[in-house]
Amino acid sequence: MAPNENPAGGESAQWQVRPIGVVHSPFTSQTGAPVQPALAGPEDAGTIEIYEQFAEGLDGLDGFERIWVVSWFHRTGPVRLRVTPHLDHREQGLFATRAPSRPNPIGISAVRLLRRAGLILHVAELDLLDGTPVLDLKPYAPTLDVFPVSRQGWLEERSRRAGPADGRFGPSS
Amino acid sequence: MAPNENPAGGESAQWQVRPIGVVHSPFTSQTGAPVQPALAGPEDAGTIEIYEQFAEGLDGLDGFERIWVVSWFHRTGPVRLRVTPHLDHREQGLFATRAPSRPNPIGISAVRLLRRAGLILHVAELDLLDGTPVLDLKPYAPTLDVFPVSRQGWLEERSRRAGPADGRFGPSS
Repeated sequence: MAPNENPAGGESAQWQVRPIGVVHSPFTSQTGAPVQPALAGPEDAGTIEIYEQFAEGLDGLDGFERIWVVSWFHRTGPVRLRVTPHLDHREQGLFATRAPSRPNPIGISAVRLLRRAGLILHVAELDLLDGTPVLDLKPYAPTLDVFPVSRQGWLEERSRRAGPADGRFGPSS
Repeated sequence: MAPNENPAGGESAQWQVRPIGVVHSPFTSQTGAPVQPALAGPEDAGTIEIYEQFAEGLDGLDGFERIWVVSWFHRTGPVRLRVTPHLDHREQGLFATRAPSRPNPIGISAVRLLRRAGLILHVAELDLLDGTPVLDLKPYAPTLDVFPVSRQGWLEERSRRAGPADGRFGPSS
């Protein structure tokens, strides 16, 4: 079969991902870490170290004030399709939340890019644990990422319940 | 070594991802497809079929007007760390663009969720090719995803050059 004849490969397909870098952050466990960049502050700062082989791909990134960090939730526990998210007290379907216990534990974090020093990106408003593998970086751009939205589900009632994470999505919970 | 002792696994780590569903869209090739949801219209509509085993995770998703579709760019060509994006005529580092020729070909698309019918999500403002594997869904929420940004790099000068994609990131280009 030609490679693109059944490109999706059906339900049983698998693909491999690999890190392009790693997060260095003050958060060494889920307990106490910010649950989202929007709930983190300027003091929640760290660095993203990009591996040398990907250096060329960073050109132009520092023109952006904010970047998407696509990450691998390496410390999450088993997949759970129903969860009680940190931002609410009601159970929800996993895909209606940003909880890490996902079939593919991939996170998207729009963090503030303070400056770039070679392969090191200094960032703030960071919600990622120390050692989190980075799969991708993308520019955050209002023209691409900001949409007017009138309905945001369960978040409408509980949209800004502040507070850090607890250990509920950890490996042993 | 305990599983979490060196959780990132270093530069040579690999992890597997698998589809939770598949995109059905009118776009069968990159040429002519919208390059971003923000540049797609209500007529760029399709469906996302979620596999039965993940059904439970969809509860509550239809309260959201817009959702992130985390997808696998299954039709992209080789990795290119310098690209000329569709939205500009200047070459940029890959990570400063949303081009698909990425080390991990993962896309994030904030599409409009029209309605859910069981395992089928009817969506619009879709920029994904027919057959694109879906790795994850997340709610799009202004409180989590909208940030004031004063600098958006090369997109500032060329932020809304409209027009569909050509074949530049395809397998044979």
